[in-house]
Amino acid sequence: MAKTALCSDDSFSSYSFFIEALDLFSSSLPSIEKSPVECACKWVLRHQHKLKQAARSCSLKVKEALGLEDRHFDQVETDSEVTFRYRDLETQLTEPDRLRSKPEVSDLGFGKFFTDHMLKIYYHSQLGGWQRPMLVPFENISLHPAAKVLHYAIELFEGLKAYRGVDEKIRIFRPELNMRRMNKSAVTAGLPTFDGHELIKCLNRLVQVDQEWVPHGEGSSLYLRPSLIGIDGTLGVVQSDSALLYTILCPVGNYFKNNSSISLLADPAFIRSWPGGCGDQKMGSNYGPTIRVQRIANGKGRHQVLWLYGPDHQLTEAGTMNIFLFHIDENGEKVLATPPLNGLILPGIIRQSIIEMCAEWKEFRVEERVITMNDVIKLKNTDRLLEVFGSGTACIISPVSAIEYQDAVIDIPTTEHSYPVYKKIKENLEAIQYGHIKHPWAQPIE
Amino acid sequence: MAKTALCSDDSFSSYSFFIEALDLFSSSLPSIEKSPVECACKWVLRHQHKLKQAARSCSLKVKEALGLEDRHFDQVETDSEVTFRYRDLETQLTEPDRLRSKPEVSDLGFGKFFTDHMLKIYYHSQLGGWQRPMLVPFENISLHPAAKVLHYAIELFEGLKAYRGVDEKIRIFRPELNMRRMNKSAVTAGLPTFDGHELIKCLNRLVQVDQEWVPHGEGSSLYLRPSLIGIDGTLGVVQSDSALLYTILCPVGNYFKNNSSISLLADPAFIRSWPGGCGDQKMGSNYGPTIRVQRIANGKGRHQVLWLYGPDHQLTEAGTMNIFLFHIDENGEKVLATPPLNGLILPGIIRQSIIEMCAEWKEFRVEERVITMNDVIKLKNTDRLLEVFGSGTACIISPVSAIEYQDAVIDIPTTEHSYPVYKKIKENLEAIQYGHIKHPWAQPIE
Repeated sequence: MAKTALCSDDSFSSYSFFIEALDLFSSSLPSIEKSPVECACKWVLRHQHKLKQAARSCSLKVKEALGLEDRHFDQVETDSEVTFRYRDLETQLTEPDRLRSKPEVSDLGFGKFFTDHMLKIYYHSQLGGWQRPMLVPFENISLHPAAKVLHYAIELFEGLKAYRGVDEKIRIFRPELNMRRMNKSAVTAGLPTFDGHELIKCLNRLVQVDQEWVPHGEGSSLYLRPSLIGIDGTLGVVQSDSALLYTILCPVGNYFKNNSSISLLADPAFIRSWPGGCGDQKMGSNYGPTIRVQRIANGKGRHQVLWLYGPDHQLTEAGTMNIFLFHIDENGEKVLATPPLNGLILPGIIRQSIIEMCAEWKEFRVEERVITMNDVIKLKNTDRLLEVFGSGTACIISPVSAIEYQDAVIDIPTTEHSYPVYKKIKENLEAIQYGHIKHPWAQPIE
Repeated sequence: MAKTALCSDDSFSSYSFFIEALDLFSSSLPSIEKSPVECACKWVLRHQHKLKQAARSCSLKVKEALGLEDRHFDQVETDSEVTFRYRDLETQLTEPDRLRSKPEVSDLGFGKFFTDHMLKIYYHSQLGGWQRPMLVPFENISLHPAAKVLHYAIELFEGLKAYRGVDEKIRIFRPELNMRRMNKSAVTAGLPTFDGHELIKCLNRLVQVDQEWVPHGEGSSLYLRPSLIGIDGTLGVVQSDSALLYTILCPVGNYFKNNSSISLLADPAFIRSWPGGCGDQKMGSNYGPTIRVQRIANGKGRHQVLWLYGPDHQLTEAGTMNIFLFHIDENGEKVLATPPLNGLILPGIIRQSIIEMCAEWKEFRVEERVITMNDVIKLKNTDRLLEVFGSGTACIISPVSAIEYQDAVIDIPTTEHSYPVYKKIKENLEAIQYGHIKHPWAQPIE
């Protein structure tokens, strides 16, 4: 329920909401002397009706500025009236003689093999909304040829991974963050939202049923791909009244064919994302237009595109990854920097995890700041650029060895240090993912 | 064959290519005294290998600047090795007892009803490319759940219309322009191109088979929706090696529910298209992100969004339409203005037809120029703004009566004149479409 979600103070985002609420209503607040979280918690509970009223009457822009828009999604996530329920899950198992044989871990690659089952949940507004979740044998999807997903890209997805730990337990990495992002994308795409906890329970069950598919051996994992598509069989660019949320699973190895470092093409002629657009949502429409640019990069012998933005050629993303720079600042201090979430950048879950983890280490400064190509060149020319790497659920961490920019190549010594930071981050994330250390980010599937 | 296409001088585009070729190679050319077209024709034929070599060695950017990129598409269109052929069409008709009943013209609306048959053409690079075209009963499409169209919006479409004329002949409006645009979108999306003439023949056959579905009565028509989708059943943001080109048909009435004028919301916070993107291609990815903005416009009682761009709030498109302003300039002369094709705007076929038709009338000046919201306000305040209207294949012409901008409403007297220009344009287009006058733009289906 919304009440509980608002009251719990176990997550940073709840806390930041209270702080915003405090600012918003500071004029009517009694003076705070002790524990602001506790006090705010009580106050919000007592004044919730006022908050809701205020939120409703705020203009969309004000709401966005205050982050109340986000709150709405969280409330939707936990609102019992507009979601499917795990308890309603219908399961139809594949007949034993139709189970597929499992590939060798060395053959896995990324996204080529699929498991024996999938999850399907239909939404039809005319039938009261979400239907029962169904766990069924892996099968083709049958769509009306006018289905909105096929014409207007009314579609979004998520990617998360399940890992087989050293203790043979299977763990999923921070799925609640995927659920929050998925519901945000759904609102933007005009598709129905749902209770993320219910989908996590359904996903856990799906992984459990196909648990033999979670590969053995570190470096490999089971990739979960929840998708939400608009399936109304009518033409015309309007909201889809019917939708299908489905999830398929792939056992995966490394995203990039060989696990060595990659090189990037940075060409300011190609823009992935722009203010006033949807580049910070995980919607299909952010990917189709990148195919041609990816091909141009490949044609020049580069693995991925380094997406730039603006007249000062700001770094935004690398291929489908967030980007990090590890460098020495003008005072001789080490800094890990990544572009800020300014609406142009996908809020990656590995990105967030790296920021949180490195901030805890306190070994170097962690900065979310605008980074331009000039900054990169200046750092390189003064021998202060140590490492560049990409991060994402598919690749986890991918070291970058070169950036081609304006007909010159900037070589980066990322992999040339004895124990580079990207390696330490990767090892620490893997230690959590594969259960070497107990950590709340990796939740075992019971 | 490419040779023939390069040699024929029956189209403006071939001619303009020769001119470009002349410019490109002017240094090595003999002096031209007579008919430049003929001379260039011969010269190009003789030096084709040099031209091809030069084109290959040009950087992508230079090719784009010279329009050689476009040439490539035209060549592909007529290259026999990379297309399906109408002569290979396999036809499987719907059983007579399964034919659907046809709706009343007054119930048609847009995109709600579909005919009895559809066209399907698969492409599999591993099977040698394009497969035989198939004309089959209207049916659902079965897709692998990892199909790229469902995750990464690797998809594009076209819209064109067939009209039942006063002589009962059925005519299609300028389909060759749709084919050219579709092949351009395909290149951008990394999907296979084809010979547009072959698809037109297949479409004509499809319309013929379902000809009873072409509605009687002006204002109504049969809408053709060719789509091209990436269907590779693998995850990962890369080119799709398999594709499906299919076409469905809908009898349609008016795109907007009632045929009166519409009002627009112009909010610079929302950007549809941007330099370095794909906003000038008819790709699905341009539509999904507009749903939320459309809902915001509807929430404010507006029919459509007027998409703005840049700090000076340039008008780009209205909903899914191109936009026109009819006004009086500072010298008291009448002008029809529309934003230029600067990469932010879909090159609409009705847009192009309006420009060409009005230029021939010579009743007022026709301008492709940047129009800002300040221009609109200035024209309005000096009583020189006569009409604003949108154009598109779905709606043909849609008069605009009001624009909401920065919390003020600009009323536009579009429909208040005795014989407004938008009406004259609409009537003239309809006279061509419904066969009142013979015109090369409307080609009868034999």
